Amino acid sequence: MRVEIWSDIACPWCYVGKARFEKALAAFPHRERIEVVHRSFELDPGRAKDDIQPVITMLTEKYGMSEAQAEAGEDNLGAQAAAEGLPYRTRGRDHGSTFDMHRLLHHAREQGRQVELLDLLYKANFAEERSVYDDDERLVALATAAGLDADAVRQVLADPEAYADEVRADEREAAQLGATGVPFFVLDRTYGVSGAQPAEVFTQALTQAWGERAPLKSIDDGGEVCGPDGCAVPRQ
Amino acid sequence: MRVEIWSDIACPWCYVGKARFEKALAAFPHRERIEVVHRSFELDPGRAKDDIQPVITMLTEKYGMSEAQAEAGEDNLGAQAAAEGLPYRTRGRDHGSTFDMHRLLHHAREQGRQVELLDLLYKANFAEERSVYDDDERLVALATAAGLDADAVRQVLADPEAYADEVRADEREAAQLGATGVPFFVLDRTYGVSGAQPAEVFTQALTQAWGERAPLKSIDDGGEVCGPDGCAVPRQ
Repeated sequence: MRVEIWSDIACPWCYVGKARFEKALAAFPHRERIEVVHRSFELDPGRAKDDIQPVITMLTEKYGMSEAQAEAGEDNLGAQAAAEGLPYRTRGRDHGSTFDMHRLLHHAREQGRQVELLDLLYKANFAEERSVYDDDERLVALATAAGLDADAVRQVLADPEAYADEVRADEREAAQLGATGVPFFVLDRTYGVSGAQPAEVFTQALTQAWGERAPLKSIDDGGEVCGPDGCAVPRQ
Repeated sequence: MRVEIWSDIACPWCYVGKARFEKALAAFPHRERIEVVHRSFELDPGRAKDDIQPVITMLTEKYGMSEAQAEAGEDNLGAQAAAEGLPYRTRGRDHGSTFDMHRLLHHAREQGRQVELLDLLYKANFAEERSVYDDDERLVALATAAGLDADAVRQVLADPEAYADEVRADEREAAQLGATGVPFFVLDRTYGVSGAQPAEVFTQALTQAWGERAPLKSIDDGGEVCGPDGCAVPRQ
């Protein structure tokens, strides 16, 4: 069974929701047969790569919050993260474009290193002092720590179109599936779970989707195939 | 809607079935919203890269056919291909491992060139005099003709593990979905169509799967999300 998780590195609820989902998954009896796929969703898709600002400033400018409101919001999110055992710097974090990170996550997926990179990106964004938006070499360092080849990563970063279509395709698909915010969890393209739900809700969703896994409905079994025993002889 | 097609380059029915499917797709009113994904399935997964032999010889040795039977089978397949307007050399083709071609098709997918490469590989295998199993540079030439970067392709070919996991994952998934031969078409993970069916069957499958596209069942809408308007304030 496949679970697709649309999220953004810059999304605190995605960071928290991922930990809650993973708690449910770790206790799920069929966890070995669940494939988890990260899907891209940018909260701030129009932002230029060099447009970086402190999160608190972004919150006041973009959403018209007072500084005190913005700080209280961060404090709340920090407390939610802490409750999941996740480190979270409530002050001094940066906000910027996550497009290149999503491109790298697609590259990492085909190298079998997606979850490693995602975890390191979240940690870098939410818990480390050095900004994750510093420069490309910051991303190269994180990607190599996730097991990726530095030169291949530099090549992806140098070509703004590398994996760009895959990021955009993910975002189009999210819209088609009805997601307006993230995290957004889709189980076997049948069940949707929106938001950083408690682990119990994910357990329920996994159980329900697992129980209802449907075999494919066959339209017609009569077509000619090639298989391990050769190719069917054509009907005359 | 997504259509996944499991197939092998060395599979005549896949070559024919793809043309029949595409005929149906070209006339399908919602074709612009159908994503087609190639999935890997090797008919002869145990074959070593340097174990290449004429198709007719393979058919007599592997399946115990007489030479006349093997040639009649190829003649029949050639006629089926011709009926779809596809060139097909019924004599002198080679058989060998398609593992590297599948690895390249995964590479091509992330470059947005999968269908271009697949078409060129089929054409090379079924219609061209030069063997598609000649050497790596034959594949490099086909891949660059499909729009891929030659150096990147050589890098994939030089590393036998590049995209190998993705090929194997496709093959495991085919087995889980109940495919024992190819081509095998899966529409939205709901409908399965086995074999090189007439275009009418694909039209029926597309129509049926499209009509039954189900919205996601929502487990719980109450989770906190971040969206274009910022992040939800946590429940206290």
